[in-house]
Amino acid sequence: MKLWDKGYSIEKNIETFTVGNDRELDLHLAKYDVLGSLAHAQMLKEIGLLSAEELEGIEKEISLILKQIVEDSFEIEDHFEDVHSKVEHLLTEKLGEAGKKIHTARSRNDQVLVDLHLFARDELQEVKGLIRKLFDRLISLSEQYKGVLLPGYTHFQVAMPSSFGLWFGAYAESLIDDIHLLNAAYKIADQNPLGSAAGYGSSFPINRTSTTEKMGFTTLKYNSVAAQMSRGKLEKSISFGLASAAGTLSKLSMDVCLYMSQNFGFVTFPDHLTTGSSIMPHKKNPDVFELVRAKCNKIQALPTELIMVTNNLPSGYHRDFQILKESLFSALFTLKSCLKISEYMLQHIIINKKAIDDPKYDYLYTVESVNKEVINGLPFREAYQKVGQAVQAGTYVPDKDVKHAHEGSIGNLCNEEIKEKMREALG
Amino acid sequence: MKLWDKGYSIEKNIETFTVGNDRELDLHLAKYDVLGSLAHAQMLKEIGLLSAEELEGIEKEISLILKQIVEDSFEIEDHFEDVHSKVEHLLTEKLGEAGKKIHTARSRNDQVLVDLHLFARDELQEVKGLIRKLFDRLISLSEQYKGVLLPGYTHFQVAMPSSFGLWFGAYAESLIDDIHLLNAAYKIADQNPLGSAAGYGSSFPINRTSTTEKMGFTTLKYNSVAAQMSRGKLEKSISFGLASAAGTLSKLSMDVCLYMSQNFGFVTFPDHLTTGSSIMPHKKNPDVFELVRAKCNKIQALPTELIMVTNNLPSGYHRDFQILKESLFSALFTLKSCLKISEYMLQHIIINKKAIDDPKYDYLYTVESVNKEVINGLPFREAYQKVGQAVQAGTYVPDKDVKHAHEGSIGNLCNEEIKEKMREALG
Amino acid sequence: MKLWDKGYSIEKNIETFTVGNDRELDLHLAKYDVLGSLAHAQMLKEIGLLSAEELEGIEKEISLILKQIVEDSFEIEDHFEDVHSKVEHLLTEKLGEAGKKIHTARSRNDQVLVDLHLFARDELQEVKGLIRKLFDRLISLSEQYKGVLLPGYTHFQVAMPSSFGLWFGAYAESLIDDIHLLNAAYKIADQNPLGSAAGYGSSFPINRTSTTEKMGFTTLKYNSVAAQMSRGKLEKSISFGLASAAGTLSKLSMDVCLYMSQNFGFVTFPDHLTTGSSIMPHKKNPDVFELVRAKCNKIQALPTELIMVTNNLPSGYHRDFQILKESLFSALFTLKSCLKISEYMLQHIIINKKAIDDPKYDYLYTVESVNKEVINGLPFREAYQKVGQAVQAGTYVPDKDVKHAHEGSIGNLCNEEIKEKMREALG
Amino acid sequence: MKLWDKGYSIEKNIETFTVGNDRELDLHLAKYDVLGSLAHAQMLKEIGLLSAEELEGIEKEISLILKQIVEDSFEIEDHFEDVHSKVEHLLTEKLGEAGKKIHTARSRNDQVLVDLHLFARDELQEVKGLIRKLFDRLISLSEQYKGVLLPGYTHFQVAMPSSFGLWFGAYAESLIDDIHLLNAAYKIADQNPLGSAAGYGSSFPINRTSTTEKMGFTTLKYNSVAAQMSRGKLEKSISFGLASAAGTLSKLSMDVCLYMSQNFGFVTFPDHLTTGSSIMPHKKNPDVFELVRAKCNKIQALPTELIMVTNNLPSGYHRDFQILKESLFSALFTLKSCLKISEYMLQHIIINKKAIDDPKYDYLYTVESVNKEVINGLPFREAYQKVGQAVQAGTYVPDKDVKHAHEGSIGNLCNEEIKEKMREALG
Repeated sequence: MKLWDKGYSIEKNIETFTVGNDRELDLHLAKYDVLGSLAHAQMLKEIGLLSAEELEGIEKEISLILKQIVEDSFEIEDHFEDVHSKVEHLLTEKLGEAGKKIHTARSRNDQVLVDLHLFARDELQEVKGLIRKLFDRLISLSEQYKGVLLPGYTHFQVAMPSSFGLWFGAYAESLIDDIHLLNAAYKIADQNPLGSAAGYGSSFPINRTSTTEKMGFTTLKYNSVAAQMSRGKLEKSISFGLASAAGTLSKLSMDVCLYMSQNFGFVTFPDHLTTGSSIMPHKKNPDVFELVRAKCNKIQALPTELIMVTNNLPSGYHRDFQILKESLFSALFTLKSCLKISEYMLQHIIINKKAIDDPKYDYLYTVESVNKEVINGLPFREAYQKVGQAVQAGTYVPDKDVKHAHEGSIGNLCNEEIKEKMREALG
Repeated sequence: MKLWDKGYSIEKNIETFTVGNDRELDLHLAKYDVLGSLAHAQMLKEIGLLSAEELEGIEKEISLILKQIVEDSFEIEDHFEDVHSKVEHLLTEKLGEAGKKIHTARSRNDQVLVDLHLFARDELQEVKGLIRKLFDRLISLSEQYKGVLLPGYTHFQVAMPSSFGLWFGAYAESLIDDIHLLNAAYKIADQNPLGSAAGYGSSFPINRTSTTEKMGFTTLKYNSVAAQMSRGKLEKSISFGLASAAGTLSKLSMDVCLYMSQNFGFVTFPDHLTTGSSIMPHKKNPDVFELVRAKCNKIQALPTELIMVTNNLPSGYHRDFQILKESLFSALFTLKSCLKISEYMLQHIIINKKAIDDPKYDYLYTVESVNKEVINGLPFREAYQKVGQAVQAGTYVPDKDVKHAHEGSIGNLCNEEIKEKMREALG
Repeated sequence: MKLWDKGYSIEKNIETFTVGNDRELDLHLAKYDVLGSLAHAQMLKEIGLLSAEELEGIEKEISLILKQIVEDSFEIEDHFEDVHSKVEHLLTEKLGEAGKKIHTARSRNDQVLVDLHLFARDELQEVKGLIRKLFDRLISLSEQYKGVLLPGYTHFQVAMPSSFGLWFGAYAESLIDDIHLLNAAYKIADQNPLGSAAGYGSSFPINRTSTTEKMGFTTLKYNSVAAQMSRGKLEKSISFGLASAAGTLSKLSMDVCLYMSQNFGFVTFPDHLTTGSSIMPHKKNPDVFELVRAKCNKIQALPTELIMVTNNLPSGYHRDFQILKESLFSALFTLKSCLKISEYMLQHIIINKKAIDDPKYDYLYTVESVNKEVINGLPFREAYQKVGQAVQAGTYVPDKDVKHAHEGSIGNLCNEEIKEKMREALG
Repeated sequence: MKLWDKGYSIEKNIETFTVGNDRELDLHLAKYDVLGSLAHAQMLKEIGLLSAEELEGIEKEISLILKQIVEDSFEIEDHFEDVHSKVEHLLTEKLGEAGKKIHTARSRNDQVLVDLHLFARDELQEVKGLIRKLFDRLISLSEQYKGVLLPGYTHFQVAMPSSFGLWFGAYAESLIDDIHLLNAAYKIADQNPLGSAAGYGSSFPINRTSTTEKMGFTTLKYNSVAAQMSRGKLEKSISFGLASAAGTLSKLSMDVCLYMSQNFGFVTFPDHLTTGSSIMPHKKNPDVFELVRAKCNKIQALPTELIMVTNNLPSGYHRDFQILKESLFSALFTLKSCLKISEYMLQHIIINKKAIDDPKYDYLYTVESVNKEVINGLPFREAYQKVGQAVQAGTYVPDKDVKHAHEGSIGNLCNEEIKEKMREALG
């Protein structure tokens, strides 16, 4: 059953090509589709296009469909092209004409738009919640290991003393930036597009403020054409937030994979959380973090994918928008699984407390030595050259007592301030 | 003069390759570099590493350098590798040892970081200001032409009545979403990174809260490693905002170019704002909007460029970050010029008030006709099929009196509400 | 059953995360995996690591597995992590020790590498075959409609006379360029990587020349590390060819969608190949070409996706490579379906032979008019200005008799030469 | 002086915006522009549109212009908008009407197209020549250090013995794949587009076969619309080859940067080829390879940039294409400089011959140990478990005598075969 049935039928291969995997993807939208339909129906009753009785019937049927969805028994069979057709069918089957009337003053584009906005709000909240959990884990590890030093690198060269406290805490604080971008995406999602119909509004006297309130949107996307233009743009906005968080997670994963190498040996994980090699019996591979890295790197290509599909399309709906769903959903679900498993793995991370003792890290302390000379009165450049010459001559002896005390340094991580900043960002 | 001079010199070709076009790019950072140096010097005095007299000398010299920068007479000659070397040279030349002391407790990475954060704040504000101007122009055009109808398309097919009021207003409202992303970038920029030294803090008792206040940052990037990780991440965050705004402008440009085609004929511009053809005397080409479209499409590749350069680099500074400056600066300057010229062009846009009268647009009114049948009591599907059959039979007669009245429709653009939303977004 | 089983087991959630959808994807590699195993086994027998009897057993079992694959009854059940484990299980179940021996002197990376190279060769040939079919269709349409004029545009402005012959033929010739890139990818795929083991070769005296011949590769990827580095690089090389072909198809689709608009009206399709609108009964939407455009635009993001995942990974295998399979396979299968349906749609394209008669296209002939003046002796610039003034004064009268005769012009399409060029490119 | 002057002038700010940095970029095309003009003029004489005398004058003036270009004294002053205007001006100034006549039967698009095709051929040859030099250097290093072992990694874990011979040779062989893609780009460039005029051919009886021969193109892009569609597509095709080569160079650079870390210590460079730190006197940073990595990673974003600008533009010229020049030229020049400096650096690379002696690399030999057990008759899985248990118990003793002998292994690098493959690829 096609919504746009006009008396002639579409060839099977054309239909297969155009429907694609919409049925499967639309299951993720089903909940939002019926919630949007409910708000729309209630509004239609308010403006006199549905009777109280008709609305009652619709509300009852919608609650039954919602129950199916929640219980995971809702299906979109092959003879429906998408969730909208299926829901309309269920309503019409039970309610007859009243079921059809719910389609008054809206179009499918309209429905997909509102579904996506509702879906995006929920998903973004969930992503932020998972980031918060990872943040808490990182802060907790930062506190737990604040006394354990770690070599700090620049240009892959041994540079200055760092610490596990700094390292874990850095990723925690960095996640706050990702929250800012996700918040922006949330604001963009939190605008009711319902009522734009095919993108140019409707001649029915609909009340968009009413549906806005019913669905708990903070505001409307007022202009109908702007509402339609959200398609593609909403997805892109979300993709920026996802790409940002994925970038942070990817970087953390790269550090972990590197630090697990025998050439660093800073961290490891219990055997049952790593994998081995089919031909090398000594290997303990960081597969989970390699895959987190890879999956998060793929997510960072999401903005490109969405831009390439939507770019240079003039205003107005194009069928092209349909394929954005798969890219967006996949990235969302992948990021959530990466956030969860990373947090889980970090629960079990094993720290090498002796890593810094290797003599190759003695040079870490040269800046300290220079600084001490400066505090003792030598101009910086001369102190620098003095220590430099000792290094080149092989006579440099480090003083390993690190006493950094300023805000954000080894001895003063400011994790409380960072936690407060996260609280504010989460709002 | 190299900051890292250790007594042996770098080969000329190596130096040319590594310095690249830094001298030229750094001119854009000069102002921020001296402001950062000023805050740093004042703090050094507070913690006793500079005397009052030394600070006074530094403040005086810095104000002279700032004057040069403002007057555009500041230069970075070939024997300096970047702005930091040049400024240090100027201070040392005049102040001797005191000039050198300003380098105490900071590194070049530190300086570039704080320069970029200060620069980003200013640039983002400027971009937002230009978006506001374009927004005002669009709202004003939306009001001016709210009574002029325009065909609305879906799938490039003539669909439903739209209007110039809706069209201009849609791009205005759409720009508000871009502001949300730019605000996120601003928040990310508005965190003082100064004091992270080479990325792992310093053993000097610096006061980062003090420099934060002096430079007017809302907060610190506390964790030193997190501050260092801002490099690349700050640029990416900005790139998301720029890509978003560029996407809106690109789409508007595509509409304009299409609507100037003889096949649409909806808008045009005065001769002196268009260009002609070297072999076709009748042409009036929309070159400005073609180039705005192209340049804004290029800006949408900026996130990819930045991600490709920084991706999979573990934590810690890498020289790779240097080349991000060119990509970022170029995108910022290009976007600003595109925003300005678009606003200028729109001042002079000429609207075809009769476009909608062409008979090929009669089908625009079919939805109206269906709706009227529905309001008169026919079920939607039947009304739809009745009108559809008239269309297929060629007997359809439109009623062109469009009276859309709901929020965000042709007769009720809600431009005041949209202006209020923009005001809130701009904060 | 894990190949790398070492006596402790992996947690279930870790395994689920790391295996991902490999079982499903690996079904596409199954055929190549057994063919690679067969060549490997035969070579092991040649160098004395398998007896004639053992080989005979393996050959028999492999032919049974191959039969299952061809008949689509081969499965990878949940307790196998990939195709390699499943095949090893089948062999060992039947052959005991001999089945295990086939794993001598190779690793899983090795197997995936050779599977992907064999798979790539077949897929690239199939893609090229489908491009050839589309090419033939386009050339045939070009010949069929060579006499039908079409407006030619520059800057979306009506510019000069074109023809359906030129338009169809242009996309045909353009596809030849895509073949060149696909040929490059084929050459890159057509190098035997088998024998690199984990990426550093093997201490067994394997004969790589022998397996190269057995699998019909033109050459070896000799260096074992280079063979390992093919992972990621092979996928990228293929992605360039796919992106190129997708770009051509996307552009053709954009033309078709635009030309189906009522504002152009150059082409259309029978009702049963288009779709309608749920609220606008007059619409006839080019959904197939919108989706071809969208899907092909997504394919053009494939190089970015692959580069982002693999970039900045140092040499040596990383688990990250696993996720490239899904991106690559999906793009290949999508492109093939787009090529097929485009060719099918073009079989049924309906041409508007009268499109050019609309008076708005009169200006198409101005260049002709200028040229005639030039042939009659007027200098070009003067002729240009004379016609230009007539256009501006509204007194220009076109002469619609178009007689272009040079190579590649309306009257001399050179389709035979283009067909010959395609034949050469296909080799 | 604008070619498209029609009696009214363009506003200054519009002109500045639209001309952009074309004057600067066009200097790189000047040589090709006059060569294309020469071929065009000679053909015009052949078909009777120029007299022998007129051609003689043009040939003389063009040789003078060419001399200026070769001597670097050719300029494009601010009152010319591009190279085409300047060349036309020079010819007209000297030759009057005859100088103008050279514009007969071609358009600026036509000229840019042929300029870009000629430029691309030369640049691609130069890139291939530089790759060949780097290849020779790598092969030579591979031979020189074929006896020096190096740890081989998988998953960043110490895996199996490798060697400098394998490592250098791998990048050499990998470059051959890049040559295949560059060859494809060359074939695509090596098709004469001249004669397509504004993209739809000309009514003049031009002889495109003649200009094809004169400019040494192997074939024509026959179809005029296809020739016009080369714009954007040619650039993209080149970008794939550049991105591929850049990817290889980026990976090599990552290896070098990592191997220079104190945590690996496999390679280093003389002091005068590295840089130091402004605050850490012991540092020796691999800045050149960090920047090669970064610049090559940026080049890998070139396809995205070009696709984003050109995607979804229907057929026919759009001004958007203008901005592709900057992206393409910049990538070409950058890649060439990266190839040169990498080859130069590798001339001076210093190898650590003792790296492998560190006890942490003892596990490299486990596969060898397993294989020996297998050769001695133990089934693989049992041998694997035996060695694995020794590793876990800490009782494993390696036998460091590595004797790999098959094609492409440590003891049999096949560099001669690889050189032969490169020779064939270069044609």
